[in-house]
Amino acid sequence: MHLTKEDIQSLEQLTRVKIINSITGIKPANLIGTRSNQGVSNLAIFSSVVHLGSNPALIGFVMRPHRDTPRHTFNNIMSEKYYTINHIHPTFIENAHATSARYSEDISEFDACKLTEEYLDDFAAPYVGESQIKMGLEYKMTLDIPLNGTSLLVGEIQHLYLPENVNFEQEMNLEAMDSVGISGLNSYYKLTKLDEFPYARVAKT
Amino acid sequence: MHLTKEDIQSLEQLTRVKIINSITGIKPANLIGTRSNQGVSNLAIFSSVVHLGSNPALIGFVMRPHRDTPRHTFNNIMSEKYYTINHIHPTFIENAHATSARYSEDISEFDACKLTEEYLDDFAAPYVGESQIKMGLEYKMTLDIPLNGTSLLVGEIQHLYLPENVNFEQEMNLEAMDSVGISGLNSYYKLTKLDEFPYARVAKT
Repeated sequence: MHLTKEDIQSLEQLTRVKIINSITGIKPANLIGTRSNQGVSNLAIFSSVVHLGSNPALIGFVMRPHRDTPRHTFNNIMSEKYYTINHIHPTFIENAHATSARYSEDISEFDACKLTEEYLDDFAAPYVGESQIKMGLEYKMTLDIPLNGTSLLVGEIQHLYLPENVNFEQEMNLEAMDSVGISGLNSYYKLTKLDEFPYARVAKT
Repeated sequence: MHLTKEDIQSLEQLTRVKIINSITGIKPANLIGTRSNQGVSNLAIFSSVVHLGSNPALIGFVMRPHRDTPRHTFNNIMSEKYYTINHIHPTFIENAHATSARYSEDISEFDACKLTEEYLDDFAAPYVGESQIKMGLEYKMTLDIPLNGTSLLVGEIQHLYLPENVNFEQEMNLEAMDSVGISGLNSYYKLTKLDEFPYARVAKT
């Protein structure tokens, strides 16, 4: 089946969103935790978290247009500068999904969606107690994408919390960690490791 | 286990890369196809493809620093403006992984890694014949991340190729499509759909 740019533009909006939101393949499932300058905690699911570099350890995520629609996560990061990113596991995908509803800013999604608000090592932003992998980040910069009003927010990892049994000699096993993936906006997947290959090198002849 | 920013910085480089490249969770597995101004095709695996918006249909991916190290994908997109993004399936994960080796610019990874170079509907860049989901993009802009020299390249979908059996009323089923995910640089995962939830709304009381 072939769709041109014009075919895509002429799709009904919800259909277009379903297709284009799924088209990049599997996406990571993370919860971003923040606190407002009024002290209200916020938790929101994001599927656009992306690794930007390891030294320094920089992580990005895509924020939808925030000029006309208030985005609590964006506002809190701008005012408080610190936030957390927390993996989602199968035991709480429904709670995590529920954070995408539009709660008013005086409501904490930790309470509304029954997830544990956890503070660690004097870090200003709340972690998700149920997550096995979580990181505390300091906001660094915003890259605006003028084509559609979205932004890439970039932060640096200040704290990293991992299960005790992580083997630093190997890449993290996301199957063993029970991390999940997202497709589109609403579909959740579990992961089964297929294979691991050595670094690819050009064969010497 | 708790690692601070300083702990992360003092890790041995390869260990740090393994951890930080895995820490965002599962990543999509895609091959990016281009052609040089000399007519040599290029194919490279990327795990940083990210959805930026559906109207227009904008897709981004992260390019590692290209000022000191030649990046064939980057150079080809800058000169030719068109490229393809193709899903990876379990039957060719080893071929796809092999594209990450540093082939010289006169070698086509399609040939070297035994993947089918396919041209569709007069589009200038090559698709991967083995992929079930593929898109042809026009380059739009680059956002530089001065913190580490990486860039986010943004393109707009011009053509989309999907299996005939896609149901437009639902989000794409990545398990049925047999798309794979990546963790770190070297680990490949298959996907099993856990659940799909309705759009989350705040309960009316």
